Amino acid sequence: MSDTCQFDVGLDQNAANYVPLSPLSFIRRAAAVYPNKPAVIYNDECYSWQQTYSRCCRLASVLQSFGISRGDTVAVLLPNVPAIFEAHFAVPMVGAVLNAINIRLDPATVAYILDHSRSRLVLVDTEFCDVAEKALSMMEGEAPVIINVPDASQGDERRLGDLEYEALLAKQPESQNWQLPEDEWDAIALGYTSGTTGKPKGVVTHHRGAYLNAVSNVLSWSLPRNVTYLWTLPMFHCNGWCFPWTMAAIGGTSVCLRRVDAGQILKLIRQHKVSHYCGAPVVHATIADAAIAAGEVFDHPVSGLIAGAAPPASVFERMEKIGVELTHVYGLTETYGPATVCAKQEEWEQCTLEERVRLNGRQGVTYPLEEGVAVLDPSTMEPVPPDGKTMGEVMFRGNIVMKGYLRNEQATQEAFAGGWFHSGDLAVVEADGYLKIRDRLKDVIISGGENISSLEVEEAIQRHADVELAAVVAMEDQKWGEVPAAFVQLRAGSDLTESDLISFCSEKISRFKVPKKVVFGPLPTTSTGKIQKFMLRKELETSSSS
Amino acid sequence: MSDTCQFDVGLDQNAANYVPLSPLSFIRRAAAVYPNKPAVIYNDECYSWQQTYSRCCRLASVLQSFGISRGDTVAVLLPNVPAIFEAHFAVPMVGAVLNAINIRLDPATVAYILDHSRSRLVLVDTEFCDVAEKALSMMEGEAPVIINVPDASQGDERRLGDLEYEALLAKQPESQNWQLPEDEWDAIALGYTSGTTGKPKGVVTHHRGAYLNAVSNVLSWSLPRNVTYLWTLPMFHCNGWCFPWTMAAIGGTSVCLRRVDAGQILKLIRQHKVSHYCGAPVVHATIADAAIAAGEVFDHPVSGLIAGAAPPASVFERMEKIGVELTHVYGLTETYGPATVCAKQEEWEQCTLEERVRLNGRQGVTYPLEEGVAVLDPSTMEPVPPDGKTMGEVMFRGNIVMKGYLRNEQATQEAFAGGWFHSGDLAVVEADGYLKIRDRLKDVIISGGENISSLEVEEAIQRHADVELAAVVAMEDQKWGEVPAAFVQLRAGSDLTESDLISFCSEKISRFKVPKKVVFGPLPTTSTGKIQKFMLRKELETSSSS
Repeated sequence: MSDTCQFDVGLDQNAANYVPLSPLSFIRRAAAVYPNKPAVIYNDECYSWQQTYSRCCRLASVLQSFGISRGDTVAVLLPNVPAIFEAHFAVPMVGAVLNAINIRLDPATVAYILDHSRSRLVLVDTEFCDVAEKALSMMEGEAPVIINVPDASQGDERRLGDLEYEALLAKQPESQNWQLPEDEWDAIALGYTSGTTGKPKGVVTHHRGAYLNAVSNVLSWSLPRNVTYLWTLPMFHCNGWCFPWTMAAIGGTSVCLRRVDAGQILKLIRQHKVSHYCGAPVVHATIADAAIAAGEVFDHPVSGLIAGAAPPASVFERMEKIGVELTHVYGLTETYGPATVCAKQEEWEQCTLEERVRLNGRQGVTYPLEEGVAVLDPSTMEPVPPDGKTMGEVMFRGNIVMKGYLRNEQATQEAFAGGWFHSGDLAVVEADGYLKIRDRLKDVIISGGENISSLEVEEAIQRHADVELAAVVAMEDQKWGEVPAAFVQLRAGSDLTESDLISFCSEKISRFKVPKKVVFGPLPTTSTGKIQKFMLRKELETSSSS
Repeated sequence: MSDTCQFDVGLDQNAANYVPLSPLSFIRRAAAVYPNKPAVIYNDECYSWQQTYSRCCRLASVLQSFGISRGDTVAVLLPNVPAIFEAHFAVPMVGAVLNAINIRLDPATVAYILDHSRSRLVLVDTEFCDVAEKALSMMEGEAPVIINVPDASQGDERRLGDLEYEALLAKQPESQNWQLPEDEWDAIALGYTSGTTGKPKGVVTHHRGAYLNAVSNVLSWSLPRNVTYLWTLPMFHCNGWCFPWTMAAIGGTSVCLRRVDAGQILKLIRQHKVSHYCGAPVVHATIADAAIAAGEVFDHPVSGLIAGAAPPASVFERMEKIGVELTHVYGLTETYGPATVCAKQEEWEQCTLEERVRLNGRQGVTYPLEEGVAVLDPSTMEPVPPDGKTMGEVMFRGNIVMKGYLRNEQATQEAFAGGWFHSGDLAVVEADGYLKIRDRLKDVIISGGENISSLEVEEAIQRHADVELAAVVAMEDQKWGEVPAAFVQLRAGSDLTESDLISFCSEKISRFKVPKKVVFGPLPTTSTGKIQKFMLRKELETSSSS
């Protein structure tokens, strides 16, 4: 603070002019302003904002009855059913921290997360009783309280213990016995990274960031009132990119979806006039394929956010055909989901489809309420020139960046070195300032002093019609230091050989970028569908040392 | 802060994850993301976001060259020309506080404001050289530096001293030598109340609130990308309700307008496809009259925000006819402009026009990012029942409430008594939770223990076709304590008498609400068009004591 001036005197914060920022304010307003508007729809259930608010308040009371309070962790092992939406409000209402666990994880990882997070209570969808039971048996610490969340549409009969979600809610009065956090810096959620390397890390986010990113979603996507949002994106991925809170901020309607099922998605889009949804490229591709097969073109405007990987041209093209407008975003668990957006420019409308696909396929510019994204040389922290060629590390700075990693000060300090959050992704900046991801930092291949983007090599390989999936990693080489090695999963029936593929690549990319070795076979993926390159690298080491 | 938990350890704020909220971030992003998009249009001038950003940076350097720094006040006496838009960014860029003075004020009041604010520099539109010169001669303190802002379209030849805006900008390099405030609680603007009672008070607002209300405007009005906004609302009114900053947040285009001229407005709406504008009822009425006279119906969607008084039914109806959708908002200088919105409900679309006008005429509900508005009994601070009858005082709480009044701790403390900001307006709450203003607190008349809304009596009087304007105030009465007295401005040629009007009112409202005295003549108004009731009260006192 500089020296005191007349504006610093007698003008302090007080209860009337300062309130901590928290997305909990949004649900209180939604219940007051849109009490009768549908908030959550799931199969035949429909809860208005007043009802949803009441259910959240009652869930908060349930949590209090188990002694949950400020700083405790509450985990959920739930698909996109109403309970996970409600947990996004009820858990922070009691000052606790929501740990939404990926339902595709193996029991050992779930056990690790429950232990590390010190979760005191878990809401478990009864489809996942087995995983939860095994995880509990593998835990080192004290087992959490389990509340079963059965889904009438599934008919699972298994239970862990005798606590049931609806029965517990029903017993609670409708009191609104909750408060905003005393400090907007208080933790609101804990999300574990998918762990392409080693143990998952616990990303801690806060009320201030959740509030701001919820609003930033509205600005980024120009969300109007009366949005109907389909939950194709799991709420356990970065808290559904903060969209539960976004929906409360604008009084939108959430249509829940237990699993990505193309037929069901088409039906729900028609039935509820869904206007918005998010997902990885594979989700959009699934929708496009099913719609095209059914001859469906949506007769109301539908917008999709796409993230997780650059959208292939064919997906953009097919989505246009069925009447869906895609916007490309990029981010990480550490940035509460989307932190850049490929903001569309008016003049792009005049471009060819191919050029539009290329322009929209970039990761883009800073998300509206994030302060800054930059592509920096991590050794000098200087920005790379906007030449579309020089690679640097994507770094973020702003209020929509995590507090840090739970009980991991070293990883936290490394992530924030130099006053920027290091994403670990490598990108170039094009002349218009838009950034384009080229690789993961640890996946870049340095061959004879030249950086090779493994992504670029993978894209070349994937242009071959016989290739289903490809991953390229660095292989040690006496002469060049490193050279690219490719792991390739072929389509059924293909008899493509290593030399075929190498000569195919030679026509597409520079000689030094062509893989020197190709291994055929299925590729190992994480629970979120990312290829586990560290396992491929291990395989290379093993084969070279043997 | 409650006791420490694992989420409080090693997870502190740092340069990567905490940045003070300031609307200055918006213009930096707009210049980066929409460099070539028009930001400001005035007559034949058009500045892109990159150019506007460059002009703001250069204005900031000009201010620095005059020694302006953190905590200094910079005043402007400007209509809606590009310079006032630019000052909204440049002044806070150097840490200074923007004091936008109403151009309709008399020299004595301008002198008072320049003295009280300790303004060190003033940008003066050359049309207002005379007012400024007189004000300077009446000041008690040191005279500020004057920078002349000539307007080529006006041809004013007068200057105060030899400093000129464009010449000073032209001399500065394009350096971006500015920083965000160190603290988001730092003052950004100072706005003087219009002073219906006594001396104007200086309302101090901060970066955090300006940031949040700029975004709240987007949510409240569902502002899309590519907005073209017409400046019918003076930017010296509560910083144009934060809309200069809103436009930067969404990269919208501002069309400047020197004065409210119906022909010019219609032309600009057509020419630039203006999509949004704000104003008092009289602005909308002027537009409607002119459009109807010209047989104009806009062929693109146009939305208006209306505030300052409940919009008359005829205005709503006429705006619908010409294709403008109105939304009613309400707020005060102390709440950065709009702090409630009459949020539209889907079911209203089924209502009759009369009912829709009634519903939309209410002040409504909390603005999206304001925390709370309540109608409280100021003696008990308890909410009034939502019966549409019981009056209470409208109070606000949240981050979009001023820091306080400059160098006026007593007024600040009174305004924030009980942890809420007291608006001084009396309202009822209807069954759906929407509030409706009934009166100013100090204008309510207490007659035989009954509260009489002066607004209700005024509305009754104004239904008489001969009445142009009416104001009702309390008159002392030996029996009843107070009784209503009416001051009435008649249309030219009317020969209405006191007894005529009293008997007219007797058919409309309860007997005890009927004015006991009627005075005919022109009514005194402030520079913002508000009737100065305190002068009417003085007139009553003088006449009763004489």
